[in-house]
Amino acid sequence: MKNNNLTDLGEFGFISRISAAVRPGSGVVTGIGDDAAVTAISPGMQLLTSTDMLLEDVHFRCSWHDPYRLGRKSLAASISDIAAMGGIPRWSLLSLAIPAATPLEFLDEFTRGYLSMAEEHGVALIGGDTCSSRTGLAISVTIMGEQLPERILRRSGARPDDEIWVTGTLGDAAMGLRLLEKSVPSPSTDPLGPKGEGQGGGGIATASDVVDPTITHPPTPSRQGRGSDFLTSRLLDPMPRSVAGIALAESGLVTAMIDISDGVLADFGHIAEMSGVGGLIRLAGLPVSEAFKAAARVSSPFPHHLVLAGGEDYELCFTAPRAHHEKIVDTMKKCGVPAVPVGIVTSSKEVVAVTADGSRYNPAHSGFNHFS
Amino acid sequence: MKNNNLTDLGEFGFISRISAAVRPGSGVVTGIGDDAAVTAISPGMQLLTSTDMLLEDVHFRCSWHDPYRLGRKSLAASISDIAAMGGIPRWSLLSLAIPAATPLEFLDEFTRGYLSMAEEHGVALIGGDTCSSRTGLAISVTIMGEQLPERILRRSGARPDDEIWVTGTLGDAAMGLRLLEKSVPSPSTDPLGPKGEGQGGGGIATASDVVDPTITHPPTPSRQGRGSDFLTSRLLDPMPRSVAGIALAESGLVTAMIDISDGVLADFGHIAEMSGVGGLIRLAGLPVSEAFKAAARVSSPFPHHLVLAGGEDYELCFTAPRAHHEKIVDTMKKCGVPAVPVGIVTSSKEVVAVTADGSRYNPAHSGFNHFS
Repeated sequence: MKNNNLTDLGEFGFISRISAAVRPGSGVVTGIGDDAAVTAISPGMQLLTSTDMLLEDVHFRCSWHDPYRLGRKSLAASISDIAAMGGIPRWSLLSLAIPAATPLEFLDEFTRGYLSMAEEHGVALIGGDTCSSRTGLAISVTIMGEQLPERILRRSGARPDDEIWVTGTLGDAAMGLRLLEKSVPSPSTDPLGPKGEGQGGGGIATASDVVDPTITHPPTPSRQGRGSDFLTSRLLDPMPRSVAGIALAESGLVTAMIDISDGVLADFGHIAEMSGVGGLIRLAGLPVSEAFKAAARVSSPFPHHLVLAGGEDYELCFTAPRAHHEKIVDTMKKCGVPAVPVGIVTSSKEVVAVTADGSRYNPAHSGFNHFS
Repeated sequence: MKNNNLTDLGEFGFISRISAAVRPGSGVVTGIGDDAAVTAISPGMQLLTSTDMLLEDVHFRCSWHDPYRLGRKSLAASISDIAAMGGIPRWSLLSLAIPAATPLEFLDEFTRGYLSMAEEHGVALIGGDTCSSRTGLAISVTIMGEQLPERILRRSGARPDDEIWVTGTLGDAAMGLRLLEKSVPSPSTDPLGPKGEGQGGGGIATASDVVDPTITHPPTPSRQGRGSDFLTSRLLDPMPRSVAGIALAESGLVTAMIDISDGVLADFGHIAEMSGVGGLIRLAGLPVSEAFKAAARVSSPFPHHLVLAGGEDYELCFTAPRAHHEKIVDTMKKCGVPAVPVGIVTSSKEVVAVTADGSRYNPAHSGFNHFS
């Protein structure tokens, strides 16, 4: 039969197939089909660019990631980078290295997912590259955004005494990964707790370490889901915080921002390093979902390491002067995104997590590091 | 020993190592080290973007490509895309998926090569991504350029009776590949001629077909190299025609342009398709190097298919009204790049190559197609 896989369709047939599914985007002068795409930046704005590479069996597994959600997530991770700068996402380039026997249905679903995420965030697909892979699927996404120079938020602006905020809930994706790995230990079968879990996802860090049993469980945030579907969907179909990122940039209240992809401890660590400051993060203040708590109940003690150092939260971590606390609350309420303060910027040049009684908590791993 | 490979250095160590080698670039507000890079487009200019993915054993072989030239070529291919639009190359993003055991020396040489090409063309490295690969090396390069809207050259502007021009010489890289494959057949051992040669490079098309022995050899262009070193260096270290592309865009003389990466027949075919025209390409007018001719002498008949449909020339093909002929000659002379007319745009919607006696020449393959 014809057109059941890429070999039947051919490279240019596949590109035409994608082009046909793409809607015209704002600011796009020339999209797919020339040597380079041509776009028009809005007057006075600067360009924001970021790129991510996702490899099969390193960043994703086709057995877990259905093609539709894989397409969505491929772009979501990049949109999150633009959100972290307070930028408005605009255009993207998608490169795919595809095993020749890949079914067209897989690629159609991937494209449909990618374009659904693009449309939700006002991003136009303007170009890319396709080639055959002799190994697994490889995906490279480049995203471009824009923002007025004075609104762009960097990692480098945090000042001592600023509050440290995070959006949404943390640890869901890491817990979702554990569920997928079916490796959540029950107390009856594994009295040693959550040690020795797999790091199978590669890009998804699930640091294992000793957990302090004296830590009180974090408060319940207002927005959250329930059940393992919620947790795995947080891993497989993350929603980048684009609306919140732009609102925070426009508010002028924020001193530094980053997206949480390697765990809040590591990612706030980047803010601290770039700002020449330290920080104190209160474990009791970290927002976790009801679904996370329910899944955590089967393992004791509470897996704080997943909240602090789990990967792929795709939430925002930002800092702002204490005096702006109420305005931040208002800003976040207006855009419908929960956010809570989780600590304070210090001048110590050290980032520490503390329990309710003031004890230090040191996870053995504080975020994912490739090549380690 | 420490720091002999990526596992010793770690992801952030490697990123720091690259950052340290990068020089500040013009228009770069925030480079490597934040969630996204920030750049400032020049006033009145539009943004040009293109991306290329290169996979080990598909697009390159580490046994042929030394890391320095591989780094250069990774960026050269992208610069060529910007040149094809008449754009000024500005900034690039580099993503690498690296087998964990890759020697640091390989990566240092790759980076040195990449940055040497960047510097030669005024391109700043502003970001990227690194991750571990469980298979071979994968490289993804995104390039950004800029140009005034009215100067940007597309594939779509060719008009009947325009002359078709090409820069430099054609077929060198394809011949270089044959030399590397050691598969140049000699008449004594292979009376069937160049049939059945490998397409080992994957992205490098070396179409095999019947060659018309009545075709006269093309004239000698003024600039050319000699020997197999020249031919293999054209494959392994191509020089994008950035200066010529910009000069042609600024001249206002050109109606359409493309870079020749899949052979002039296929790439002019893209101009023809996008412009709704056809073309007549004269084989006798195609520029080939002395080195190509020398290598061709060992195989008879003359391998015109390598000139017409060999891959990776990275020359420019453009169209311009006949009335601009002398001005084009002057423009190209000023930027020191040879260019010759090779045919005429027609209204037939068909692209044909003809021999000196007017016979049609149809290569069996007219350019590389992934997934075929």
